Amino acid sequence: MILHGYWRSGTSYRTRIALNLKGVAYEQSAYDLRAGAQNGADYRALNPQMLVPTLEVNGTLLTQSPAILEWLEERYPEPALLPQDMSERATVRAMAALIGCDVHPLGNLRVLGQLRTQFGADSAAVKQWTARWIGDGFAALETLIGRHGGRFAFGDMPTLVECYLVPQLYSAERFSIDVSPYPRLLAVANAARALPEVEAAHPDRQPDADPQ
Amino acid sequence: MILHGYWRSGTSYRTRIALNLKGVAYEQSAYDLRAGAQNGADYRALNPQMLVPTLEVNGTLLTQSPAILEWLEERYPEPALLPQDMSERATVRAMAALIGCDVHPLGNLRVLGQLRTQFGADSAAVKQWTARWIGDGFAALETLIGRHGGRFAFGDMPTLVECYLVPQLYSAERFSIDVSPYPRLLAVANAARALPEVEAAHPDRQPDADPQ
Repeated sequence: MILHGYWRSGTSYRTRIALNLKGVAYEQSAYDLRAGAQNGADYRALNPQMLVPTLEVNGTLLTQSPAILEWLEERYPEPALLPQDMSERATVRAMAALIGCDVHPLGNLRVLGQLRTQFGADSAAVKQWTARWIGDGFAALETLIGRHGGRFAFGDMPTLVECYLVPQLYSAERFSIDVSPYPRLLAVANAARALPEVEAAHPDRQPDADPQ
Repeated sequence: MILHGYWRSGTSYRTRIALNLKGVAYEQSAYDLRAGAQNGADYRALNPQMLVPTLEVNGTLLTQSPAILEWLEERYPEPALLPQDMSERATVRAMAALIGCDVHPLGNLRVLGQLRTQFGADSAAVKQWTARWIGDGFAALETLIGRHGGRFAFGDMPTLVECYLVPQLYSAERFSIDVSPYPRLLAVANAARALPEVEAAHPDRQPDADPQ
C-alpha cells in the first residue's frame, strides 16, 4: 500500500491518522505541492483531479480522502472509526463532513492561490478568509462536541472526527487563529494528538517534511 | 420524516434526489436562505452550523448531506446508490466527494457573500471564481466518467454520483458556465434528469420555489 501525498497536506495528514489508527502499514510517495509536483504527468496518471492524496492498493487507485477513509473502515473494521448505531454513524459522519466540506476546502492551497491571483489578497486578507471558515466550523463543532463528546469528539474512542479535526487544528495553529473560544474541541483534539498513532501522522514526522 | 431545506440549495436538492430514488416519503420545511432564515433561533436549534439541510427522523436530527446520504443508504439499502464491491464503492464515493468537497462548497451562498464583502467581488468576478472550481471539477469528473461510466456516471444505474452531479450542473447552468467540454458528464446527467424521481427533486418543483 502506497500513500501518494504531501507532508503538510491536511487530507494526506487525515489519511495517515486513519491508517495509523487502523494499524495498517504503508509506504509514502511524496509530491511537493509548493513546486506543483501534483500537476505533473506522473501524478496526473494516478489522479486526474491532481489533488493529493491517492492511496494505491495492489494497483487500484483510491482518491478523495473521505472515500479512502470509508474504504479503510470497510476493509479494516477494527478498531472501528464509526459507531455501530446507524444514527450515531450519521452524527460522526456529519461532524467529519462539517470539516471536510465546509472548512478544509476553503483553505486549500489552490483556493488561497486563486484569492491571491484573482483578488490580489495579501497574507492578512488570506488569514481573515481562513479565520472566517475555521471560526464558523469550529463554533458549530464545539456545540456538537458538547452534545456528543466524551474523551474524544464523539464518545470515548477516536472516530473519523479526529482524523479530520487534528489536521484542521494544525492548519488553524499555522495561521495563528485564536482557538481559545473552543475549549471542548481543543481538549478532544489534544487527547487525540497524545495518541502515538496520531503523533506519528504529524507532518513534521514524515519523510518529506521540510520545515522552514 | 421532514427535510428542512431550501428549494435552490444544492445540498437540499441532492438530498431530495436520494430520498426520491430510494422511494422514501418526506415532508418539507423551508428556510429562505436569501432572507437568512437559516440563522434564526428555530433553525439553529436544529443545526448549530446554520446550514441546510437537516433531515428530521422521529425527532433525531441528521445534518450534512454526505452523512444523510450514507444514512439513507444504510437505512434503505434498496435500490442501492453504492455498488457492492468495496473498491467500486470507493470510486463512487470519490466521484461524489470530488463535487461535495472540491466544487460545491466553493460556490456556496455564504462563500460568494464573503467574496463580495471582503474583496468587493462583482457578478463577473463571482462568475469567474465559480467557473474555476466547476471547470476543474468537471474536467476531472469527465475523465473518471470515461473510465467508469455507462448510462450513468458509474455503470448503468444511478449512484450517489448523480445525487451530487445533477444539482452541481443546475448551478453551473444558472451561472451560464460553458459545460460543452464535458460531453460524457452531460450525457449521464441528462439520463439522470430524465428519471421521474430526479425530475421531482428539481428546485422549481418544490413547494417553496419562487423563480424570479
